[in-house]
Order: sequence, then structure tokens, then C-alpha cells
Amino acid sequence: MNKDPNTLLVYDIPDDRKRVKIADACLDYGLDRIQFSAFLGWLLPTQQEELFLKIKKILGKKHGNIQIFPICADDWKKRKVIEQKAEERGKTGEGKS
Amino acid sequence: MNKDPNTLLVYDIPDDRKRVKIADACLDYGLDRIQFSAFLGWLLPTQQEELFLKIKKILGKKHGNIQIFPICADDWKKRKVIEQKAEERGKTGEGKS
Repeated sequence: MNKDPNTLLVYDIPDDRKRVKIADACLDYGLDRIQFSAFLGWLLPTQQEELFLKIKKILGKKHGNIQIFPICADDWKKRKVIEQKAEERGKTGEGKS
Repeated sequence: MNKDPNTLLVYDIPDDRKRVKIADACLDYGLDRIQFSAFLGWLLPTQQEELFLKIKKILGKKHGNIQIFPICADDWKKRKVIEQKAEERGKTGEGKS
């Protein structure tokens, strides 16, 4: 059973090595990457807390801003999305990404 | 009076020119940049809708993923944040960002 996402994690981490490790931690927790530095998924509150502490430990004393937003079911329903694949050019087969 | 943020906007837009224009639109609506491609702030529901349509128009047929998440007061309170300035190196004046 797929549950609606209830966790959005957004970060800004200048250190490349730390950023990669933190991205890996998010993926380990089953979050989906929706952007280079943003992840979305479903986590128990205890898992949110665990992931938060794990990330804090990985970051150490490095510069960074990390925010975990819980998203309730109502907010999830009200979310607005634009999702467009590669530009249409009047031809097929142009999609690269 | 400062209101707690109720809008989180996250995007992934490969086209540089479009991305800059969309970032400008977010700033025009008073949102704060919390990351290269993520903005946070307080908007009326009508403003959320307006900004969404504006961004849709700017993006045109280009490739992109844009998500606007409403954040209720409860979720805002439950948000977890790590914010660290430049690394401490045992000296002062190392901060660059």
C-alpha cells in the first residue's frame, strides 16, 4: 500500500561530500528525490526524528540549512503541481532527460 | 506583523532562463529563498493560485517540475530545522557566505 507523502525535506549544503551523504540517507529512508536537494516521502514521526538526527550527525560542524516539513493529508491534497517532460518540438524522440 | 510561512515552493527546472524568471516571480510575491530552488513564505490562497498560474505561463512548454505545498500552522510548528553558519575552525572571521 502506497501512502501519501507526509514528509518534505529540503536542504542547502555547500559541502559536496556531506551533501551526497545526506542525499544517500534520505534515499535509504525511502524518500523520493523531487529536486537536486529536496526529497519527499512517507515516514513515521519516529523515522522523521531518526533521519533528522542522522543528518545532523553527518553534517557535523559544516555549514548548512536543512528543513524537514511534516505535511498533513489536507495540505497534501491542496498541493499544486506542474510536471512537464521534455519540450515538444513538433517532432518525437526529442526527450533527453 | 509577520505571519508564519504557509507556502513552500520547490522546483526543478533545467532551463536557466526560465528558472531565473520563476525565482524572480517567487521573490516578487515576497517568498524567501531557502535553497537554490526552494522558496518559503506567507501567501493568501488566491496569491498561491496567482503565482502558480504565473509560473505555469513562464515555464511554457519547457521541461520542469514545480510543486507548491500549503503548510498549515500545525505542520509549521512541527517543522525541524538545522541551521549552521560557516564551519568553526578555532578562529574567528572564517565565515565567507
